Amino acid sequence: MTVPPRHPFYLDCDTGIDDALALAYLLAAPTARVAGIGTVSGNVSAAVGARNTLDLLQLAGHAHIPVALGAHDPQAGSFGGGAPWVHGDNGIGGVSLAPAVAELAPETAAEMLVRLAHEHPGTLRVLAIGPLTNIAEALRLEPALPQLVEEITIMGGAAFAPGNITPVAEANIHNDPEAAAEVLAASWNVTLVPLDATMASVLEEHHRQELLSSSAPVPRALGEMLGYYFRFYEGIFGRPCSAMHDPLAAALAVGAVKATVAPVVRAAVDTSSGPGRGQTICDLRGVHMGYPEQPGARCRVVLEVEGDFAAHLVETLLTFSESTTAALGLAGSAA
Amino acid sequence: MTVPPRHPFYLDCDTGIDDALALAYLLAAPTARVAGIGTVSGNVSAAVGARNTLDLLQLAGHAHIPVALGAHDPQAGSFGGGAPWVHGDNGIGGVSLAPAVAELAPETAAEMLVRLAHEHPGTLRVLAIGPLTNIAEALRLEPALPQLVEEITIMGGAAFAPGNITPVAEANIHNDPEAAAEVLAASWNVTLVPLDATMASVLEEHHRQELLSSSAPVPRALGEMLGYYFRFYEGIFGRPCSAMHDPLAAALAVGAVKATVAPVVRAAVDTSSGPGRGQTICDLRGVHMGYPEQPGARCRVVLEVEGDFAAHLVETLLTFSESTTAALGLAGSAA
Repeated sequence: MTVPPRHPFYLDCDTGIDDALALAYLLAAPTARVAGIGTVSGNVSAAVGARNTLDLLQLAGHAHIPVALGAHDPQAGSFGGGAPWVHGDNGIGGVSLAPAVAELAPETAAEMLVRLAHEHPGTLRVLAIGPLTNIAEALRLEPALPQLVEEITIMGGAAFAPGNITPVAEANIHNDPEAAAEVLAASWNVTLVPLDATMASVLEEHHRQELLSSSAPVPRALGEMLGYYFRFYEGIFGRPCSAMHDPLAAALAVGAVKATVAPVVRAAVDTSSGPGRGQTICDLRGVHMGYPEQPGARCRVVLEVEGDFAAHLVETLLTFSESTTAALGLAGSAA
Repeated sequence: MTVPPRHPFYLDCDTGIDDALALAYLLAAPTARVAGIGTVSGNVSAAVGARNTLDLLQLAGHAHIPVALGAHDPQAGSFGGGAPWVHGDNGIGGVSLAPAVAELAPETAAEMLVRLAHEHPGTLRVLAIGPLTNIAEALRLEPALPQLVEEITIMGGAAFAPGNITPVAEANIHNDPEAAAEVLAASWNVTLVPLDATMASVLEEHHRQELLSSSAPVPRALGEMLGYYFRFYEGIFGRPCSAMHDPLAAALAVGAVKATVAPVVRAAVDTSSGPGRGQTICDLRGVHMGYPEQPGARCRVVLEVEGDFAAHLVETLLTFSESTTAALGLAGSAA
């Protein structure tokens, strides 16, 4: 029996309920090894996101994975306070986890990314599921980053789909458009996982119940967090359920989910102060011809994916076993 | 037998091949009466568009309809020279029409619109199928215009669909974003007919052959113009055919075609100098809930229409009879 190689990953996140699911998915994915995690302000502040990340890692029995604090403020302006109406005041839907013993790594998120890129030249995969402030900072620290990194997958943007923070802008990109513009302009091939794909990847109440019925604390905690998340999405979809933004990007990054429609197109970010600020402007004018090749294009925009993602996600999260994590347990729950 | 009332129309156009089809459609529509036409620079200059309009009116036996010259330049910058690669150097695909005897009206397009609105208070319908420079000027000449006009229908913009002049902007709006912003902000209910609807309303080669086989000069001339137009659209669709932008807007304005998906949403125009300039930013975030009502929204965005529009268009254009127009004839043809 051959064991598939595990790709080293740097995860950049703003943990966040769907970030928590993406992190757990990545820890459970048999082809991924999380080498380090940086946090950034987005759904919550970088500091709260780091706390949530450390607590989740401990709950999952992965307290050894280093977590670095990243940028609090975007490149322009200052952090706006996050989205407590989506993720709860503590970012994880009011669920209370046992406080982690581990401390933050003695480096910034951008420094960690650059370090890991040098330690794993040509093989490090970057998964960015928050605003792109840290990634842009890392590009400035190490201009060769695009050559050192194997792949970068970004949850962000909206192509044909409406935005979720303005009519045309998705929150991760809108929270730091200048950083996103820098990241998309760098000389690497980016896989962008926009709302087009993630809003079509919906977790339903019966999926949540499967997580809650687990004997392992990680799926149970995630199921409780989703109760809060579902209430926000009820206003979007008209029923308790939720889009799976960050977990879908994680599944694409590890290669467990394949994109079926994902043209490589020219893409820019609107950094104006107009009503389009924060929009990912993807050149999809080739739609009528099946997207002919665009010279110089480097952004692979995932519009559709194959298979039943929600089922795959739940199945993967249920591989967390009681034995690895029972000793740590949950400190309590607001659900 | 009751004859349906004919709605008085002011047509604002930049004639243009699909403008020519829209004009002919409007002349043939049993519920419309064209009270006046203004031209604006867009596909061609306002002056060339006026010449084409006068020549077409004469060919169609409607030389009595007044044509007013409108704005040559948009509000910001200057006219960019039009789109000869789409519409031909003369704007009507190189087809040569007998020069009209009638002269231009002694008023500007904006003045004509204001005059007609006062002459038909509450019943005038405005159909704008070019850049919105004249309409914005008329709003400044007569601030009560939104109360005087019954309806305004605009061919322009892109909602979910990609743009056709930039990745996100449609040409009519992009040619004068400041005017479009003014028109969408005025206190009237606008029906916007964007690329979402018009790119799905395609005329095929067999339709063109039906027009060419007519014994009447108007359909024949339009069929010849479409030969040029089809060559441009072959690069978009991969076969000789074309979208029917302006004629679809005309059919919606006269009520002959019904919209099946047309949410009333908040809409703005990007007037920034960023990559989104000229985009119509329609708030379509309600898509997952069937577009709940948006307080203060006034822009009806036509996303889908019912029926076989191409067949309806051809059928209507074929009602031009030999007798009304044969005496005038075609001066010749480049086709």
